[in-house]
Amino acid sequence: MNGDVRVDAERLRGYTAAILRAAGMDAEGADITARVLVAADMRGVESHGVARLPQYVKLIEAGAVDPTAKPVVERDRPTTALLDARNGMGQPASDAAMRLAIRKAQEHDIGVVTVRRSNHYGIAGYYAMLALEHNLIGISMTNSSPLVAPAGGRRAQVGTNPIAAAIPTGDGRPFVLDMATSTVPVGRLEVYGRKGLPLKPGWAVDSEGVETLDAATGRAGALLPLGGVAETGGYKGYGLGVLVDLLTGGLAGALYGTLIGGLWDAGAPSDLGHFFLALDPAAFGPLETFQARARDLLDRLRRGEKARGAAEIIVAGEKEARAEEDALRRGVVLYHVVATALEDVGQRYGLGGLPVAP
Amino acid sequence: MNGDVRVDAERLRGYTAAILRAAGMDAEGADITARVLVAADMRGVESHGVARLPQYVKLIEAGAVDPTAKPVVERDRPTTALLDARNGMGQPASDAAMRLAIRKAQEHDIGVVTVRRSNHYGIAGYYAMLALEHNLIGISMTNSSPLVAPAGGRRAQVGTNPIAAAIPTGDGRPFVLDMATSTVPVGRLEVYGRKGLPLKPGWAVDSEGVETLDAATGRAGALLPLGGVAETGGYKGYGLGVLVDLLTGGLAGALYGTLIGGLWDAGAPSDLGHFFLALDPAAFGPLETFQARARDLLDRLRRGEKARGAAEIIVAGEKEARAEEDALRRGVVLYHVVATALEDVGQRYGLGGLPVAP
Repeated sequence: MNGDVRVDAERLRGYTAAILRAAGMDAEGADITARVLVAADMRGVESHGVARLPQYVKLIEAGAVDPTAKPVVERDRPTTALLDARNGMGQPASDAAMRLAIRKAQEHDIGVVTVRRSNHYGIAGYYAMLALEHNLIGISMTNSSPLVAPAGGRRAQVGTNPIAAAIPTGDGRPFVLDMATSTVPVGRLEVYGRKGLPLKPGWAVDSEGVETLDAATGRAGALLPLGGVAETGGYKGYGLGVLVDLLTGGLAGALYGTLIGGLWDAGAPSDLGHFFLALDPAAFGPLETFQARARDLLDRLRRGEKARGAAEIIVAGEKEARAEEDALRRGVVLYHVVATALEDVGQRYGLGGLPVAP
Repeated sequence: MNGDVRVDAERLRGYTAAILRAAGMDAEGADITARVLVAADMRGVESHGVARLPQYVKLIEAGAVDPTAKPVVERDRPTTALLDARNGMGQPASDAAMRLAIRKAQEHDIGVVTVRRSNHYGIAGYYAMLALEHNLIGISMTNSSPLVAPAGGRRAQVGTNPIAAAIPTGDGRPFVLDMATSTVPVGRLEVYGRKGLPLKPGWAVDSEGVETLDAATGRAGALLPLGGVAETGGYKGYGLGVLVDLLTGGLAGALYGTLIGGLWDAGAPSDLGHFFLALDPAAFGPLETFQARARDLLDRLRRGEKARGAAEIIVAGEKEARAEEDALRRGVVLYHVVATALEDVGQRYGLGGLPVAP
């Protein structure tokens, strides 16, 4: 297989779910996990898409993740709950947690559900967006393996700890912010390294904590938090990353900071923590008025005077929504190496080849 | 008066409150406002301290802010509420709103209170920190006058819209993040301009939306969001700023984006929106266990290996806490021009000179 391929979204989900079932997940869990992974590919966040599947399967086969684990509600109060994911896959536990937060918000205006003993949960935005179909505001955060140096530090001590927030606008064009609290993901350094390109300022430090523009040196060092070095506001991104850790690992009673192992470390359970919040805007006034204000705010931004050389002003989630629309119409784009790796796993489990779009 | 002066914190609050009473505020509102302003000076955030008082007084005298207005609770539900600040000073309304969120969290684990028809509320962190003495997590946000260009834009369309979060740690060293979603405050460009220094990358754009290192050019243009230009992650800071606007102006039904007037514009009520959240960590497990985890997480960061040339690794709120301790012991530092301007207002209202620390 050469070049990128396009795969029908529904079929890609089916193929992915079949692999996950073969690896030991039940039908529902496999379906949810496939949905989250394919959503990432559809939204143009390939780093969190089916490219991860071979690694997930490896963790399951190594016994580091229990594919049969069912999340249990450990604490349940009217507006809050704590789930124990029991070292199962992060996606089904997170889906259950966000849906519980949504039910609480429907009853009490707001719900916060945290998860402990979890694993990698995919794109943060997926869970925040679950709130949208209920006309609720959704927030989703997770901690993750240490990759980011704190301001003044030289070692990776903080995860890229993403924050996602989804705001319903009533017009099918929601505001969806989904951002790591580092300037770039670690995969960006790999890509730039492969292409022999210099990094940009604010991306990475060397092993002495000094900013570097060399990809290999940066990979041997650590990522910089959003804002880069201190004088360009890096202590803010660092602060946001630690805040996420406190609200996920801290609040849920999971691991945190440097206690978390490497991303694909099969040695011990990850014990990651997640945080999900749903909030009903209708608690503060009519839903329609809120949505009209949100639409107007976003439209005014879009209509703003463009910078020299800029084609348009977009708002958070717009680029991803366009990619999703294209993927629905023309199929999900997969890099050929990703497609090949996926087929390798599929065939090992006795599945056929990937159903490529016509 | 030449050079900086030191003023006893309690006396500075008294002097500030006396001016606010003379300008028309009642004793309680004046006391709260003075407390918020002096807290900013004590924590080293002079830009939001008593230096603002002459401008506040001007707005009151111009009839743009009603010093006698009492905030009213417009909507009140078990976990949420909306306050109408009735164009009064932002500080008393925000103090009341955060205290209401705290009471809701004490009863229902979580409380969210928004405020509309408000004015400048001072440092965001002050309100988040009110949650700490109740062992709650506090979050505070506000929208503000447009000063920041969106990614791809050339005009100021978004406020510096700060986010503050306070986490109780049980050892008197709370985590307190208090950050604007722009890289720097607009005052930083003024200071650099006065000193004839070039700006740093990621701070500002010119009037065509192109990054500039010239202070005057930047002031005629707009601030950059946290992360700077797009390739260093500026769309994330832009996204955070808009998220704050949606959760404050949007949720509360206040103004937003470019509908908000200039910072010291006396022409029309500001109608700013605020958002306050209190969350009880004890809803997810024993408070002491949470606090122990939080302390351990922060201590591990502090103990991390320093970057070359860095004296220490600190966590959010630590620098401000040290400044506060120093101000308590040796008096609050005021730049002489700030002290003089404060005395001018005081004397105009028949007060004596500023009570300078011995």
